[in-house]
Amino acid sequence: MAAITKVSPLAPEKFPDLPVINGVRFATAQAGVKYKGRTDVMLAVADTGSTIAGVFTRSATRSAPVLDCQEKIGKSGTGPLAIVVNSGNSNAFTGKHGRASVAAITEAAAKATGADIDRVFTSSTGVIGEPLPHDKIVAVLGDLNTTLDAGGIGAAARAIMTTDTYPKGSTVTVDTADGQIKIAGIAKGSGMIAPDMATMLVYIFTDANIAQADLQAMVSTINDMSFNCITVDSDTSTSDTLLMVATGASGVTVGPSSTEFRSALNALFLDLAHQVVRDGEGASKFVEIRVTGAVTDADAKTHAMAIANSPLIKTAIAGEDPNWGRVVMAIGKSGAAADRDLLSIWFGDILVAENGWRAESYTEDAGASYMKAQDLVIKVDIGLGNGTATVWTCDLTHGYIEINADYRS
Amino acid sequence: MAAITKVSPLAPEKFPDLPVINGVRFATAQAGVKYKGRTDVMLAVADTGSTIAGVFTRSATRSAPVLDCQEKIGKSGTGPLAIVVNSGNSNAFTGKHGRASVAAITEAAAKATGADIDRVFTSSTGVIGEPLPHDKIVAVLGDLNTTLDAGGIGAAARAIMTTDTYPKGSTVTVDTADGQIKIAGIAKGSGMIAPDMATMLVYIFTDANIAQADLQAMVSTINDMSFNCITVDSDTSTSDTLLMVATGASGVTVGPSSTEFRSALNALFLDLAHQVVRDGEGASKFVEIRVTGAVTDADAKTHAMAIANSPLIKTAIAGEDPNWGRVVMAIGKSGAAADRDLLSIWFGDILVAENGWRAESYTEDAGASYMKAQDLVIKVDIGLGNGTATVWTCDLTHGYIEINADYRS
Repeated sequence: MAAITKVSPLAPEKFPDLPVINGVRFATAQAGVKYKGRTDVMLAVADTGSTIAGVFTRSATRSAPVLDCQEKIGKSGTGPLAIVVNSGNSNAFTGKHGRASVAAITEAAAKATGADIDRVFTSSTGVIGEPLPHDKIVAVLGDLNTTLDAGGIGAAARAIMTTDTYPKGSTVTVDTADGQIKIAGIAKGSGMIAPDMATMLVYIFTDANIAQADLQAMVSTINDMSFNCITVDSDTSTSDTLLMVATGASGVTVGPSSTEFRSALNALFLDLAHQVVRDGEGASKFVEIRVTGAVTDADAKTHAMAIANSPLIKTAIAGEDPNWGRVVMAIGKSGAAADRDLLSIWFGDILVAENGWRAESYTEDAGASYMKAQDLVIKVDIGLGNGTATVWTCDLTHGYIEINADYRS
Repeated sequence: MAAITKVSPLAPEKFPDLPVINGVRFATAQAGVKYKGRTDVMLAVADTGSTIAGVFTRSATRSAPVLDCQEKIGKSGTGPLAIVVNSGNSNAFTGKHGRASVAAITEAAAKATGADIDRVFTSSTGVIGEPLPHDKIVAVLGDLNTTLDAGGIGAAARAIMTTDTYPKGSTVTVDTADGQIKIAGIAKGSGMIAPDMATMLVYIFTDANIAQADLQAMVSTINDMSFNCITVDSDTSTSDTLLMVATGASGVTVGPSSTEFRSALNALFLDLAHQVVRDGEGASKFVEIRVTGAVTDADAKTHAMAIANSPLIKTAIAGEDPNWGRVVMAIGKSGAAADRDLLSIWFGDILVAENGWRAESYTEDAGASYMKAQDLVIKVDIGLGNGTATVWTCDLTHGYIEINADYRS
């Protein structure tokens, strides 16, 4: 395994101060699933009446914990609600052993917390294809339940890390006529310093009172514009999971028309999603791709993702090369509608290409100078319609190869 | 530009002895389009009565020469037939200048060779977005026509190279009851040592007598099983072109039911396609991906391409890591039908995973030992149906990053 020598150059300056979200408490433990000398299990318990929504990987080879969560999300249920997450082993592609591990952990967590088993959700992240030593997790659940702490969310963010180079957290507050709502979230992902640890896990908690169906609709919609708009290397985990819990402890009810809440939640989702990209393996640049003028929004996203996933564009960005010809290539190959002679391309605010050719005002010096920035924006107008999309990615560097190819050398 | 220091380790031992194909002659020249001290233009002229078929990039931003070829392929026409190819500049994304360049070159070639302008086909490969200095090409066409040589195909293979690390050629003969047929082909591509030179160009000549519609059908079908089944980095050129000319000089007629000819042609297409992959930027391993048991052949190809294009799999191969978990991941994300618990995965003849888990007989040592080979086979049985596909790719190494990111450093 390659040594983790340093934090991503794109990391935020510090982990944010996450507030207490009334109605949910956290605990962490060193179960020794794989790592030594660090926490690797977190338990979150939310009070009776809390609702939970989730979105999951669309992989056809998704893991046992994901399948179990998907069966449970949307069932009404009462009583407390528990989330158990371990790092070090993803319990993915583990066959019937995987199902047995999920059963053992959820039963033990239900017993420890008093939650109905249909209100216990688990995630696992780490090595794939190895049996999860679930006894180690079961062994610590009783103690975890006795050490639950309303201020424990920061420790939870650290316990779920695999090879992330920094913990990821975000918080927003919403002031409404009925009172203040707090939202806090944590995430892990994209620091695949050791292989097979690609999973993105996200847990978000709010003290708003939100009906499950409303919460699920909001989470699904906002996820499509945030976590589903990031890519590091186009590879999709078998375990991606996002869970959001609303405890209702603030006494403020949020409905489908609460645009303020929705807007704040969107900002939090985006912040966490960007933090995941900024911890992409080997990343040295953070890149926003904005596509406008496509025939549909779906076409715009297809173009944007073709640009974001192109190895030739990602290596050009790593080399600080304003290689707009590769952007033309990516649009051409994406499969979505495009007309070569109607495209316009900008690097930041610099118009690079239009009318089927390099822009007359463009100079290679201006382009090369722009590409030296750490955060970059590539804009493309397709010139055919009103479809838009924005996605985020990072560059493809020697660091990516070192992390993913050299670990045995 | 990174220095081209050495030939790909996967290169064939030597360029094959390509036979004379009666009815077609070749000439090359140093026009100075971009390179100094090497040939960069080739002219091929086939005798009256020759038929021509072609397949082209599906890019929506394809180049002016490609659009011009596509308009002409399939028109009947008589008289001689000419192909002009230059390296050093791709005449792609060059707007109205691009169309003017194609017009100037095709007019001059028609005048020099006596071919009808609808029987003149051009390709350009090299830098994108720069105006093609077509006057330099026009200036040498007269001389080229006076130096045409039936034995010149090897020199033609060298003139069309951009940053390939070796010229690519292949030949097969077919013995029929009516006499012998010869086929010879040349290709360039995938050695994107300098940026923007990704184009794959292929020219194949036979002395068989084949009606245009039959030739086109055969070329399209075989192309789908060869050149459309290779990938280096999932990025598609704006200029990919394959042209095949049948001169008829052997006097042997080939029809749609000529399975011997079709089989020989398939072998030649595959040989050239594999040579392109073996010159993939930075490649150190040649990898065959065989998928069986998919619901349809199309699903099998989707799975195979998801495996072949996965950066995580390609880096694992570079690191000689038998990382079967990443193969599970790629199948899961491909979008084609799969059932986690029905998959079987082999590295070579080593059964690695089955029944939703690592195979009982599998040892990491056996996998790691297998991965040290230069040529690798990854086999996957999806376990759902009879769909099959085979594709070819190479690994993703530091060499790829050096070639595509570091050229300005």
